[in-house]
Amino acid sequence: MKPVKVGLLGLGTVGTGVVRIVEGHQEDLSSQVGSPIIIEKVSVKNLEKARSIEIEQSKLTEDPWEVIRDPEIDVIVEVMGGVEQTKKYILEALDRGKHIVTANKDLMALYGAEIMAKALEEQCDVFYEASVAGGIPIIRTLIEGFSSDRIVKIMGIVNGTTNYILSKMSQEDASYEDVLKEAQELGYAEADPTADVEGLDAARKMVILGSLGFRTNVELSDVDVRGISGVSKEDIAYAKKLGYEMKLLGIADRQDDEFSVSVQPTMVKKSHPIAAVNGVFNAVYVHGEAVGETMFYGAGAGEMPTATSVVADLVAVVKNLKLGVNGLKAMVPFKQKKLKTDEQIAYKNFLLLEVDDKAGVLAQITQVFGEYDVSLESVVQSPNEHTPDAEIIIVTHHATKANMNKVLKHFESLKVIRRIKSVYRVEG
Amino acid sequence: MKPVKVGLLGLGTVGTGVVRIVEGHQEDLSSQVGSPIIIEKVSVKNLEKARSIEIEQSKLTEDPWEVIRDPEIDVIVEVMGGVEQTKKYILEALDRGKHIVTANKDLMALYGAEIMAKALEEQCDVFYEASVAGGIPIIRTLIEGFSSDRIVKIMGIVNGTTNYILSKMSQEDASYEDVLKEAQELGYAEADPTADVEGLDAARKMVILGSLGFRTNVELSDVDVRGISGVSKEDIAYAKKLGYEMKLLGIADRQDDEFSVSVQPTMVKKSHPIAAVNGVFNAVYVHGEAVGETMFYGAGAGEMPTATSVVADLVAVVKNLKLGVNGLKAMVPFKQKKLKTDEQIAYKNFLLLEVDDKAGVLAQITQVFGEYDVSLESVVQSPNEHTPDAEIIIVTHHATKANMNKVLKHFESLKVIRRIKSVYRVEG
Repeated sequence: MKPVKVGLLGLGTVGTGVVRIVEGHQEDLSSQVGSPIIIEKVSVKNLEKARSIEIEQSKLTEDPWEVIRDPEIDVIVEVMGGVEQTKKYILEALDRGKHIVTANKDLMALYGAEIMAKALEEQCDVFYEASVAGGIPIIRTLIEGFSSDRIVKIMGIVNGTTNYILSKMSQEDASYEDVLKEAQELGYAEADPTADVEGLDAARKMVILGSLGFRTNVELSDVDVRGISGVSKEDIAYAKKLGYEMKLLGIADRQDDEFSVSVQPTMVKKSHPIAAVNGVFNAVYVHGEAVGETMFYGAGAGEMPTATSVVADLVAVVKNLKLGVNGLKAMVPFKQKKLKTDEQIAYKNFLLLEVDDKAGVLAQITQVFGEYDVSLESVVQSPNEHTPDAEIIIVTHHATKANMNKVLKHFESLKVIRRIKSVYRVEG
Repeated sequence: MKPVKVGLLGLGTVGTGVVRIVEGHQEDLSSQVGSPIIIEKVSVKNLEKARSIEIEQSKLTEDPWEVIRDPEIDVIVEVMGGVEQTKKYILEALDRGKHIVTANKDLMALYGAEIMAKALEEQCDVFYEASVAGGIPIIRTLIEGFSSDRIVKIMGIVNGTTNYILSKMSQEDASYEDVLKEAQELGYAEADPTADVEGLDAARKMVILGSLGFRTNVELSDVDVRGISGVSKEDIAYAKKLGYEMKLLGIADRQDDEFSVSVQPTMVKKSHPIAAVNGVFNAVYVHGEAVGETMFYGAGAGEMPTATSVVADLVAVVKNLKLGVNGLKAMVPFKQKKLKTDEQIAYKNFLLLEVDDKAGVLAQITQVFGEYDVSLESVVQSPNEHTPDAEIIIVTHHATKANMNKVLKHFESLKVIRRIKSVYRVEG
């Protein structure tokens, strides 16, 4: 049978993995799809670079347009990264009737809607399983496995770097700065770690998961983002003492038709399955109205896990090619976007306050909570050994974000509170 | 657009859930598939029975053939259970060009190959996501998510009843008999619990998972099965002491082209993610050569989780109907079946031996292991307080099943060993 020809944009870590799998599993793959899959052309940054795989020099080019414009090529696999220029390549490829497999979360989070609309117009497939949680087939699970259910909540550990840092801080009672440095040395964190540690990478992935989960068009500006750079050793010690693990969670939840999406360091009850996900592993917890609690766990990144997802998408495209049904099964958002207001967003909160160590302080503080309808689950007064001041730890019941903001605003003018040391969302 | 008509065989727990979802999510479902889904006819055991859902009496019949033979019906959803007679219904329905969604693990484990062959011949879909781990979309994950990878190991907690029993025994230091009785009272175990506690239910699910994972035709007789009825309080106490949890694991593993499938109570290292799966929850751990470790966790049974999977399959059938591609994407086994021999099956073992309490016993025992090339990870001698005899706990390194059988056979004639109290597989 006629071979299917693939153009590869990018031959970095993931691209190399894709070549390895396609060449190494050729027999299995062609048994599944009914024809050989050939990597026809590959765009690279530098032709001269030494590579860990064998690939004919004649297949390489430094010009991605050469790949896009090759009329022989049926499917473009984009693993080069980048946003604005890459989007041009993808749109042009679609225009030429080529199908797309991409691992590019930035592209899909920012221009997913535009790209999918173009794909629909051209009846082309665009698959992007590897863009979120590399080794976990979460995107097809959300599209197909949950097709009959209403998803009410998605919680994801979708950034390996920050999960590595928080796990280490918790396991070794170490500081953020020390662990970050170690992660950089081990290659788990970038020299400029901002996108990871400030939650931007996780936010982009939550845009993708939220859009699929709620069948609507979530945008990056809809996501409330806070990173982990402010998480202290002390915060983690308190979390553990109270039976929580600190995790950078992406949370997308829905009530009726309104939803919210956020990313923030969160204290997760130890009994919750997502609390046990450590190191660079990723996990996505999905709560469906009918199906109840589910969780999907696996590698978040890495050459082979990510490449596995890319090639699984490639197999799906090729099967559709054989059937002539490309572009017909995409999840197209069909629900109008309705964001929750701060009056509708509600969760539990942990607060660590540094206060004057004198009588009546607690009464003043609890009165403020009462004033704004925030009820408390627990209050623990714990003397701080380093200063004459005392510390108070409070865990609230579910409280609206609007009311919590009023409480925190009020606290600023409350003289007995010296400092609001920490505020965290609590889950589980 | 023309509605798709569904015939439902069975209106028990799962059938009721299917009706609830199809009626309750009609708008979401038809947005996805492009036409309404109508439950046209339902076969029930007893027309007079009171039901928790409203359904027109005229749609009900006590004769499944009436549903099968209705020319209006496009898809048969089989949730009535049973094997021989049910198989006749399914084959006849396929003969009439109807697509099948089934939750019937017994049917698929015993006659899956025959049914899939017939489906291929008739170009019909047969989907069976709900047959294994009700609320976990593991079947589409194995078919699609891992399409480009080579699965080397699947470990599943795929029976909720036994996991409930073992979790309770571990958490409450309770005996098998007491917990089984409690599980029966709570409705988690049947009056005749044999199929669950002796591992037969799990074995049938492993037939399905193994066939998909290894792309070959695993049969029930290929599975080595041992249940949990012999697991004692003492065994679990020792397991915990050594850092393990006792779980009934279905294990399918492969080396090169040879595989083995088994079900047995297994001591799982506490740090392994599957060790933390408790109560009636199910989990399937899949190790792919490229993707590494993944795990999928969720409800194993229950009206709504199982019905969710059934309706997700129904949505997939209806999408294929619209595209005219039914029956073309089935996973057809393409690998020849090669079972591992006992010389190729290897794992760690835990042994609990009751021995004479005198000098030189340990030397005699360790010599036997040496004789058959079984090396030891640890040996712990622990005096038993109730008898004058001593107990020895041994954990081996990976040893072949053939060699371990020789060791155990030799032990029978070794006078210093009074009794082989327990032998378990060890994982993690």
